Amino acid sequence: MTLTLKEIEEARARIAPYIVRTPLLRLRNLDEHLGCEVYAKPECLQTTGSFKLRGALNKVLSLSEDELERGIVAASSGNHGKALAYTAKMLGVKATIVLPYAAAQVKVDTIQNWGAEIVRCDVAERFEVARRIAQERGAALVPPFNDEAIMAGQGTAGLEIVEECPDLDAIVVPVSGGGLIGGVATAVKAVSPAAKIFGAEPAMLPRYSKSLAAGHPVTIEKRETVADALLSLIPGDVCFPYVKAHVDAIADVDEEYILKGMKLVITEGRLLCEAAAGIGAGAILQELIPVKETDKVCLFVSGGSVSIEQLRMLEGLAI
Amino acid sequence: MTLTLKEIEEARARIAPYIVRTPLLRLRNLDEHLGCEVYAKPECLQTTGSFKLRGALNKVLSLSEDELERGIVAASSGNHGKALAYTAKMLGVKATIVLPYAAAQVKVDTIQNWGAEIVRCDVAERFEVARRIAQERGAALVPPFNDEAIMAGQGTAGLEIVEECPDLDAIVVPVSGGGLIGGVATAVKAVSPAAKIFGAEPAMLPRYSKSLAAGHPVTIEKRETVADALLSLIPGDVCFPYVKAHVDAIADVDEEYILKGMKLVITEGRLLCEAAAGIGAGAILQELIPVKETDKVCLFVSGGSVSIEQLRMLEGLAI
Repeated sequence: MTLTLKEIEEARARIAPYIVRTPLLRLRNLDEHLGCEVYAKPECLQTTGSFKLRGALNKVLSLSEDELERGIVAASSGNHGKALAYTAKMLGVKATIVLPYAAAQVKVDTIQNWGAEIVRCDVAERFEVARRIAQERGAALVPPFNDEAIMAGQGTAGLEIVEECPDLDAIVVPVSGGGLIGGVATAVKAVSPAAKIFGAEPAMLPRYSKSLAAGHPVTIEKRETVADALLSLIPGDVCFPYVKAHVDAIADVDEEYILKGMKLVITEGRLLCEAAAGIGAGAILQELIPVKETDKVCLFVSGGSVSIEQLRMLEGLAI
Repeated sequence: MTLTLKEIEEARARIAPYIVRTPLLRLRNLDEHLGCEVYAKPECLQTTGSFKLRGALNKVLSLSEDELERGIVAASSGNHGKALAYTAKMLGVKATIVLPYAAAQVKVDTIQNWGAEIVRCDVAERFEVARRIAQERGAALVPPFNDEAIMAGQGTAGLEIVEECPDLDAIVVPVSGGGLIGGVATAVKAVSPAAKIFGAEPAMLPRYSKSLAAGHPVTIEKRETVADALLSLIPGDVCFPYVKAHVDAIADVDEEYILKGMKLVITEGRLLCEAAAGIGAGAILQELIPVKETDKVCLFVSGGSVSIEQLRMLEGLAI
């Protein structure tokens, strides 16, 4: 565990020219629904549509010139792939993104439009293919979360939150492998130790609640969830100790409440968010996170990768 | 024409405790689509979901205690009605909102939940009914736009925009009766005279382009538009001189481009906006407003009153 506030502050200086400093929003329209004073960190408004740009940029900007010349490689059809393709475009670096044959065409197009080389393969082989390409070319494989430079980049969002609202009572962060919450919790606990950090993961994939109970990362059974950005089956071994040290509790949120949270953030918060980004609101709606009327609670709205067509799943759903 | 920067600054001090100071957002994801550096003033994130709260609050807070005791009345099932009902609730004033029988139940419920008395009538009679109620009770009739106190309130959003980005090249503002653009243009031209103010109205209801050509307010033929917050058939006579004096040009935007603009702001800007609030992006997409790559252009995203179900109209639409 070598990640501290210092590395996160350095990451901030490194990535500042390239990212949007998203504002901390006060979403009064959500107060009655959630029973507290609601704030949001809208990383759906970040360039490329998610917080992933922060970590990707910090990692790539930390590579040597030699490494940069040989390019970067990643296996991701989601927000990480978009963030890396955009990072490579901005920095003039060659990116290779490995995508499963099944990836939605709109995602393939976006990544291709940013100039990345695309390699297609079977979904089960994608990490192996990426590793092989990186090895053959001497290119840098950029992991999605299990890396302290990635975590430091994500942590910059935590710094921004507590700087804008130093007396925040709690932050609710979506959880998958643990890169985001590990970075954010490290930053927040260093600056505002009284602020509680709650994680929210799909009840269908409770990798962190199971692992924290066991005291070490355990692999859970693969199941489906609407929160398709939160699919890790095991905590990252680099991330896990940070989550264990700094996170106050993990909420396992039912599918119905993930969707309710997503609908609330979209229709009352007026932020277009993906299911994974609505899970924090869902956790409070499901009463998994204790909040009081006077508490200042920040929802970490992690991303907005959702199509108009996908929003049909929210029709008729009561919040 | 007695509205000046002074009244707008006074309005700002008056309403500050009650409104959200919405941030000026930098929407880099829209740059390539619109061919300029895109900013947004997201009044869809304002409490009640639109800028209308600013004007309603300024007007009601300008009433005498005697007037306040007798209550306030308005005829609006839209953003103005919501803003007034919420204003009345916050200030502990009795509000009566006149709604057509045809008003959507969700709107009726929202207004009722904020404690306003609701009077139903035929749509054609609603202004007459509101006037009669106001007269009978000695209550204050709060107009939606044709009033300098309302315009001063809306103008506070303009002040905020140019304070956060003093070297903005242009602001594109949705236009109906002229209360919003009249207030915003008065504020902006006083502080940053070099910033251009463009209005965007539905080509189906070109009340401002016709009236500016005629030199006085003219009534246009009633037609349908998807931008259901921009339905005025004639400029407000109080608003018109301000628009004539301060607005650089009016764009008449086709229905298809209003929807394209709405879809762009939602899917790439990640802000849930109603059709009226997407019209500025639509005007640029339709090439009705001249912009250069280096121009800093702010879209005034006026409101977010749209249901998940209504978003179906954007499915399959190419931006």
